[in-house]
Amino acid sequence: ARRHRIAVIPGDGIGKETTPEGLRVLDAAARRFGFELELTHLDWSCETYARTGKMMPDDGLERLRAHDSVFLGAVGWPGVPDNVSLWGLLIPMRRDFDQYISLRPCRLMPGVRSPLANRGPEDIDFVVVRENTEGEYSSSGGRMFRGTAREFVTQESVFTRQGCDRVMKYAFELAMKRPRKKLTSATKSNGITFTMPFWDERFAEMAKGYPEISTDQFHIDILCAHFVQHPDWFDVVVASNLFGDILSDLGPAVAGSIGIAPSANINPEREHPSMFEPVHGSAPDIAGKGIANPIAQIWSGALMLEHLGEAEAAAAVTGAIESLLAEGGPRTRDLGGNAGTADVGKALAEVV
Amino acid sequence: ARRHRIAVIPGDGIGKETTPEGLRVLDAAARRFGFELELTHLDWSCETYARTGKMMPDDGLERLRAHDSVFLGAVGWPGVPDNVSLWGLLIPMRRDFDQYISLRPCRLMPGVRSPLANRGPEDIDFVVVRENTEGEYSSSGGRMFRGTAREFVTQESVFTRQGCDRVMKYAFELAMKRPRKKLTSATKSNGITFTMPFWDERFAEMAKGYPEISTDQFHIDILCAHFVQHPDWFDVVVASNLFGDILSDLGPAVAGSIGIAPSANINPEREHPSMFEPVHGSAPDIAGKGIANPIAQIWSGALMLEHLGEAEAAAAVTGAIESLLAEGGPRTRDLGGNAGTADVGKALAEVV
Ligand SMILES: CC(C)[C@H](C(=O)O)[C@@H](O)C(=O)O
Ligand SMILES: CC(C)[C@H](C(=O)O)[C@@H](O)C(=O)O
Repeated sequence: ARRHRIAVIPGDGIGKETTPEGLRVLDAAARRFGFELELTHLDWSCETYARTGKMMPDDGLERLRAHDSVFLGAVGWPGVPDNVSLWGLLIPMRRDFDQYISLRPCRLMPGVRSPLANRGPEDIDFVVVRENTEGEYSSSGGRMFRGTAREFVTQESVFTRQGCDRVMKYAFELAMKRPRKKLTSATKSNGITFTMPFWDERFAEMAKGYPEISTDQFHIDILCAHFVQHPDWFDVVVASNLFGDILSDLGPAVAGSIGIAPSANINPEREHPSMFEPVHGSAPDIAGKGIANPIAQIWSGALMLEHLGEAEAAAAVTGAIESLLAEGGPRTRDLGGNAGTADVGKALAEVV
Repeated sequence: ARRHRIAVIPGDGIGKETTPEGLRVLDAAARRFGFELELTHLDWSCETYARTGKMMPDDGLERLRAHDSVFLGAVGWPGVPDNVSLWGLLIPMRRDFDQYISLRPCRLMPGVRSPLANRGPEDIDFVVVRENTEGEYSSSGGRMFRGTAREFVTQESVFTRQGCDRVMKYAFELAMKRPRKKLTSATKSNGITFTMPFWDERFAEMAKGYPEISTDQFHIDILCAHFVQHPDWFDVVVASNLFGDILSDLGPAVAGSIGIAPSANINPEREHPSMFEPVHGSAPDIAGKGIANPIAQIWSGALMLEHLGEAEAAAAVTGAIESLLAEGGPRTRDLGGNAGTADVGKALAEVV
């Protein structure tokens, strides 16, 4: 049988509750579609940090390298500074494994209520392709005159031609596979005048190779407004690290729940493991109660299956999610129900 | 009579149509409340640029200095690069006149339909206080290896203690004057790890001086989501230049129309003129047709009156806008009506 090696990192907070449900559904899919998942469970988290002073062992990334993919819950916990937790586990994976594509589908699922008036599933179905390794999330910056009146900090955004071109190429190729063949670029070249005009240049250059794709671009401010006023305008949206981060939280909010939104951190060349995680975080406010929505995690599992070449199984999982939501199956609080995390996971595992 | 010297710059596109309506209403308010407006009309625009190679004369800023305020329409036109038009007229005003506060009220007005389901005027009534001179809109950056595979660009965000403190102080003081006494800070310290943690530090420090204010902070991604899912949570929101830009387009979108949203670019010390402009731009797609919504411009005029010490007149103008919208007066297309720009201006001038 086909065999895939998966590193599982539940991480913190609700990640510890949603990951088991993700695995439950993946396991069901593996049995039904005849492949094997070889799982390595890793407890790397803010608790590890409290115990050992590190989010992961020194050879953490090396150990992950032996796997096809990483299936991640959530990283971060109050009391542990983000620059320790996120920059000690999440960001190094994205960056060291050159997962330069962050793929974030936003769909209003049948049976889910959008906060927008008069919008149905046909109105909200787009994908945000986020650059995931450079841009505004940079390691270059500093602070001067600490503690004095003239104190200041700087941080340098960095956009490379290679970095822009490869994410844009991916986005154009993705748009080619979708019926609407439409690609929107998020920019802010009227205000951020060194980096963003370059982004626009590279986008225009790449567009020349894809005459079938209809393109447009909006400044991030008005683009956010359009997500609310005209979500139906969008098909594939390509964006820098920061703008992609913003759009891929706003998109799911417009589509009804962040508890549903999945993400894939992909190294398309498969030189390194890719990583699959929900868009939501560790949600300390509801952690430990068994009430978190596991759908984002399970849908992230579907994206992982697709990446692993198990397209049929992937489709079965997303199909199961659609049916459950459309047909009034168990739903968690964020969707107006009162089911627990495991109820949803079990229901999905049964029908996958 | 009290006398205020106003420089009027209609600028480009619909700015040329909305500014006259703004002046019509300001003029009515002046007559009713017994003050005088001494207007200097300036045709600085992208047309000036086409004619003279400059957006404004070399002594442009000096000439503006002789005025109490600038009343601006919109800047920018297709064919003229933004770094010429915006950075040749709009941004220099904000920066050279140290208009470090950009004040952007977001209200769902009675009689206006929000794109959000089941939201009324009581749910959406907040103010974005945007830092307007530094941060992500910086003049420091560059490009290397142009035209080669290793080409890259950089842009440095710069946050000074002085810059952070003064905008935060303004926001806290504003929150003190509002009944809910609530202030939210927009951050992204989990991803933008040099500048944003400093922003958070300064916010926490400033908060110590305002124990009556309840504060919270959200990362910009989830904050955008909350604007859609829980607009009622917000009272005053303080944000960096870029985040404030984003939130102050998203806020009005959530509140029904960007055609209504006003903005004030304020130098609180009054050492330099302040500037008042709609949030919307020159809107080339509808320019010249007489159908643009003048309310954002007129409301910006009300913010100007307030700044000039004409609080009663300011309240009369916003009151007139509220009544017009609530009572089904003439409205432009963006609000579902078919009135022209001048119809709305005239109706407001009559009742102010
Ligand atoms: C035109 C542009 C430079 C400007 C900005 O980003 O500040 C506009 O979007 C605004 O909000 O006033
Ligand atoms: C946790 C944080 C660093 C992360 C990001 O900004 O990338 C998160 O918001 C996301 O979108 O995955």
